[in-house]
Amino acid sequence: MSDHLVVFDIAAGPVTVKTGTLLTEAARQAGVEIVQPCGGQGRCGRCLVRIGDGKVRRRSTLRLSSADVEMGYALACQSVVEDQVAVVVPPQEKVERRLSTDRMVAEVTVPDSYNYESDQSIKRLCLSLVPPSMNDQSDDWGRLEAAIKRQLGAAFSDVTVNISLTKLRQIGQTLRKGDWKVAAMLSVDPRPSGPHDVQLIELLPGHIPEDSPLWGVVVDIGTTTVTVWLVDLVSGQVAVQTAEYNGQISRGEDVISRIIYASKDDAGCQEMQGLVLGTINHLVDRACKRAKAQPTELFKCVITGNSIMMHLLLGLPAATIRLMPFVTAVNNLPRLEAKEVGLNIHPEAVVDCLPGVASYVGADISAGVLSSGLDDSKIVNLFLDIGTNGETVLGSQEWLVTCACSAGPAFEGAGVLHGMRATRGAIEEVWINSQGWEPVYRVIGEAKPRGFCGSGLISLLAELFLTGIVDKGGNFKTGLPNERVRRGEHGLEYVVAWAEETHYGRDIVITRVDVDNLLRAKAAIYAGFTVLAKSVGISLGSVEQVLIGGAFGKYINVEKAVEIGLLPDLPWDRFQFLGNTAVRGAYLALLDRKMRARIQDIASRMTYIELSADNSFYDAFTSALFLPHTDLALFPSVVKELSQIKAPA
Amino acid sequence: MSDHLVVFDIAAGPVTVKTGTLLTEAARQAGVEIVQPCGGQGRCGRCLVRIGDGKVRRRSTLRLSSADVEMGYALACQSVVEDQVAVVVPPQEKVERRLSTDRMVAEVTVPDSYNYESDQSIKRLCLSLVPPSMNDQSDDWGRLEAAIKRQLGAAFSDVTVNISLTKLRQIGQTLRKGDWKVAAMLSVDPRPSGPHDVQLIELLPGHIPEDSPLWGVVVDIGTTTVTVWLVDLVSGQVAVQTAEYNGQISRGEDVISRIIYASKDDAGCQEMQGLVLGTINHLVDRACKRAKAQPTELFKCVITGNSIMMHLLLGLPAATIRLMPFVTAVNNLPRLEAKEVGLNIHPEAVVDCLPGVASYVGADISAGVLSSGLDDSKIVNLFLDIGTNGETVLGSQEWLVTCACSAGPAFEGAGVLHGMRATRGAIEEVWINSQGWEPVYRVIGEAKPRGFCGSGLISLLAELFLTGIVDKGGNFKTGLPNERVRRGEHGLEYVVAWAEETHYGRDIVITRVDVDNLLRAKAAIYAGFTVLAKSVGISLGSVEQVLIGGAFGKYINVEKAVEIGLLPDLPWDRFQFLGNTAVRGAYLALLDRKMRARIQDIASRMTYIELSADNSFYDAFTSALFLPHTDLALFPSVVKELSQIKAPA
Repeated sequence: MSDHLVVFDIAAGPVTVKTGTLLTEAARQAGVEIVQPCGGQGRCGRCLVRIGDGKVRRRSTLRLSSADVEMGYALACQSVVEDQVAVVVPPQEKVERRLSTDRMVAEVTVPDSYNYESDQSIKRLCLSLVPPSMNDQSDDWGRLEAAIKRQLGAAFSDVTVNISLTKLRQIGQTLRKGDWKVAAMLSVDPRPSGPHDVQLIELLPGHIPEDSPLWGVVVDIGTTTVTVWLVDLVSGQVAVQTAEYNGQISRGEDVISRIIYASKDDAGCQEMQGLVLGTINHLVDRACKRAKAQPTELFKCVITGNSIMMHLLLGLPAATIRLMPFVTAVNNLPRLEAKEVGLNIHPEAVVDCLPGVASYVGADISAGVLSSGLDDSKIVNLFLDIGTNGETVLGSQEWLVTCACSAGPAFEGAGVLHGMRATRGAIEEVWINSQGWEPVYRVIGEAKPRGFCGSGLISLLAELFLTGIVDKGGNFKTGLPNERVRRGEHGLEYVVAWAEETHYGRDIVITRVDVDNLLRAKAAIYAGFTVLAKSVGISLGSVEQVLIGGAFGKYINVEKAVEIGLLPDLPWDRFQFLGNTAVRGAYLALLDRKMRARIQDIASRMTYIELSADNSFYDAFTSALFLPHTDLALFPSVVKELSQIKAPA
Repeated sequence: MSDHLVVFDIAAGPVTVKTGTLLTEAARQAGVEIVQPCGGQGRCGRCLVRIGDGKVRRRSTLRLSSADVEMGYALACQSVVEDQVAVVVPPQEKVERRLSTDRMVAEVTVPDSYNYESDQSIKRLCLSLVPPSMNDQSDDWGRLEAAIKRQLGAAFSDVTVNISLTKLRQIGQTLRKGDWKVAAMLSVDPRPSGPHDVQLIELLPGHIPEDSPLWGVVVDIGTTTVTVWLVDLVSGQVAVQTAEYNGQISRGEDVISRIIYASKDDAGCQEMQGLVLGTINHLVDRACKRAKAQPTELFKCVITGNSIMMHLLLGLPAATIRLMPFVTAVNNLPRLEAKEVGLNIHPEAVVDCLPGVASYVGADISAGVLSSGLDDSKIVNLFLDIGTNGETVLGSQEWLVTCACSAGPAFEGAGVLHGMRATRGAIEEVWINSQGWEPVYRVIGEAKPRGFCGSGLISLLAELFLTGIVDKGGNFKTGLPNERVRRGEHGLEYVVAWAEETHYGRDIVITRVDVDNLLRAKAAIYAGFTVLAKSVGISLGSVEQVLIGGAFGKYINVEKAVEIGLLPDLPWDRFQFLGNTAVRGAYLALLDRKMRARIQDIASRMTYIELSADNSFYDAFTSALFLPHTDLALFPSVVKELSQIKAPA
């Protein structure tokens, strides 16, 4: 194997790599950022580069026309270096680094019942020790441990307080520096049976005022967005909320792409881990600066997220999650320490990763169910997280069933020609005039439109259907007296915004292919809860409350979602939008040991139904591939609406 | 501060150091070994070097004559670099690297009662798991944990099996590599109350024959000698015994010197830790080679040693141990992992450091008491570890009192002009003819004599006293018709070996100063158990058994030791020599959970009596500063012997 020089036009200098190295890897070594939304599978075509001088071997040109290839274009993730080569990197479409905060900050009130003394597992004790003397020669740790146990109370007389070797090396100096007055930060966890599990996390010289903040942090790792809340454990108040795109996005937009990227080799796994850790640590730093806290003053972290995010954060192998029979490495994670996870908070802070149920029903759902209150409800609830995995829970305080329906990323703006995330420039709502078929739309951030976000697509599809532009099978009606319906590169399409109105100066359209993708996505979700209801022998009509979680869910228009058959046709007052239920559930678990125990209980109580092994799912799915559904009897309100609208036409 | 070039004649190259750097530090940087038996205090004079070119500032010349200073000699540990300087390093007296094994290998029989199934905390389970399928999608860890708990039995149904993140990352691959047949190595510890503490240490693909060895290791860190036993936990057999001088010797021969060296700065502390770890890891490697085992196959390590050795091994600050009121950082160490300690065995192997009682009554004594059986004895026992600290325990199954008497290192051959350790060339026994005052002696290893070891000194002192060469106050009798008693550089002395008989070609003598040191040492030990007996209101005569521990104790001649008043005057059949009781106790703790619990019980039951705070100790000490004692009524057998010997004279 020989070495070859690779020159990227935008790199600081050339790099030398071995025969067979991928251009993406060479770029990484050269410090050049090349986005790989599909995780390096050659599927998305976003890592396009142009070969200036020299040659590469193209493993796949799936996304390239022969003209592209002739012009020297290549996919960096599919191009193998075999000779000296010069590469031109086109400007990469940057992920906007700051989320619009008004869409992310949730109103959080501290639960009325929260009582720091009885509920919180992190304790701060101010201790005054009797100094050693010739009459009392106890060892430093023995002296300190006895004082801790005394202050914790009689129930702790049999407990052994745990301490790390690192901390043991420091306590002597701290005790003397504080003149035997110290503040001890402890984690005090009840065990299922027997004595408490007590760990000394930090010892500081001197005493600390009782009401000064004691920091904990909540992390929700979404596939797209990472959310961090900084919480004062004494008052229970959320001091800072902050969020950022998950740094892994550049290596895969959906979870499957990320698994593939992370499973390539150890470096891929470590890179994925480093990317999300980078995002979290950056957010924690930002939150600390705002609250004027030091990251080392954060003594506890509760983490939630789907199973794939959890595996990638911890460097756990995720490959088996996407292969039959779809198993995770671990659902119930042991208590970890910040330093082994790589979080830049107190190195011995407790890191509590919430439990998941299955490969595609993760800790975000366990936490979501808690914060929705479903597990404690006397009535039948349907809990939905509308997204790529379409996690669904049906149940009450008596029983819980769950499934994940592989909806695909259409509702997250991917797999749709002009789809995008719900950021500045996204069309989030569309209205179409049923007479002249002209649209009106609303854009996020008062900007020129750049594409559609999920709620925009739902709204648009409903309007296309109600106004007859597409039929119940998703076929565009030709011959309408409006030039917006036309034949484009991808077949029939409808133009929502003309080039001159838009940010990029090109028409924004929805195509037949897009409609099909949306139909499959909504059919999968509808089929999911249909199967759940059937499995427990109830009808969807008997669902008394529909709880919609996920940051995205918050912006769905129920009416439109029912019109396309994404949500069941129930009275509107049965729908509730809960926003990011995962982060709220994790927040409750951070505050209150009883809530944490309830999440554990939820995870173990949920009966998981594997849809890909369920014959009835395929039937339900194909029946739901229509607008709103094959069986119109399931959607009486839509039938009524159609009759009203179509009448004047 | 400027930089100065320092050139050591035996170094590979010069080093550059800042003004104020000690020569010993410069030597370390230059890779030159300079021994510092006193720990760099300028007391022992063993780090003598000669300044060739340039100058140093001498902080202390305590050990140098003005002639020495004029000739350019300096103590490396007391010489500060202030200018460019060239240093000549005289050949360093090397510690002999191999101990004579015949003196170290103990006969060990596996306790009859040992039962691997019920007693051993390390378990090896061979598991056959049902592979995951679409009907059973449990996560890998959930599947494995359930199988472990099933095999451990019904008592473990409520237990959570602990596992490290590192191990979690590996189990998936191991399970599949072994085709769902695996061997799990677990640590299963009972807690004081509640469920067991179970940890998965290692998972290997495939099954392992039931009777194949499962390795554990015992480490006894003596101030002088480190002993390592490699043990098969299934059979209980000790497969290999090996020992080596403690690598810290070059930085201090006694514990006080070591504390001083380690407390200088972080580098000193880390160096001490590194030195003893080096010794242990070297011994473990050697033991593994002999047993054809891999170090990573060692899953448990039990460590014993005095408190100072334990602190220095773990990098714990030891400075407070030697300062009033003499407290340790920690007596009861938490369970540690090999990787945090720095032991080159399985990185997650359990490291169990046995508990100590006080600064100068360490885990070696807790373990020693266990292996002596004293704590379970119906009669009153006296347990002695004759050495620098003279740890003493008095008691029975009903009560235990302990103390440490600062005897000094005389019995270990230090602080005596021609003292040495019990290695090749050491005079270990002396007989003196009571008529002509001519000596006969026995040397270890059939070699020419080089000096006296501890047992040789006891024997010699007894003979000097019985033959009247020294009186009961330790004064040499002048005017004897034998040229062996003469006035030397250090006052009166007795020549045991003439220059031509010896290894170094110089007379081997015992001086008045040596005798005084020995008197103080034996008086401290005698006073120690006198005070203990008094504290519980019994007479020494009621001691029914004297148990003498320590590798050194094994070679003491009871008769001689009683004659000098080191041991109480009791019938000889009440004395038992137990050899290295510390390593035996640790071995029992490695095998049997009940034994480990008993050591904990011993450590907590022992009432420590601080002699330096005890007025009666000073009285007892001064009374014992005579041969055999001020109160001859305490030594009837010696009185009788004296009358018999002196009669013919």
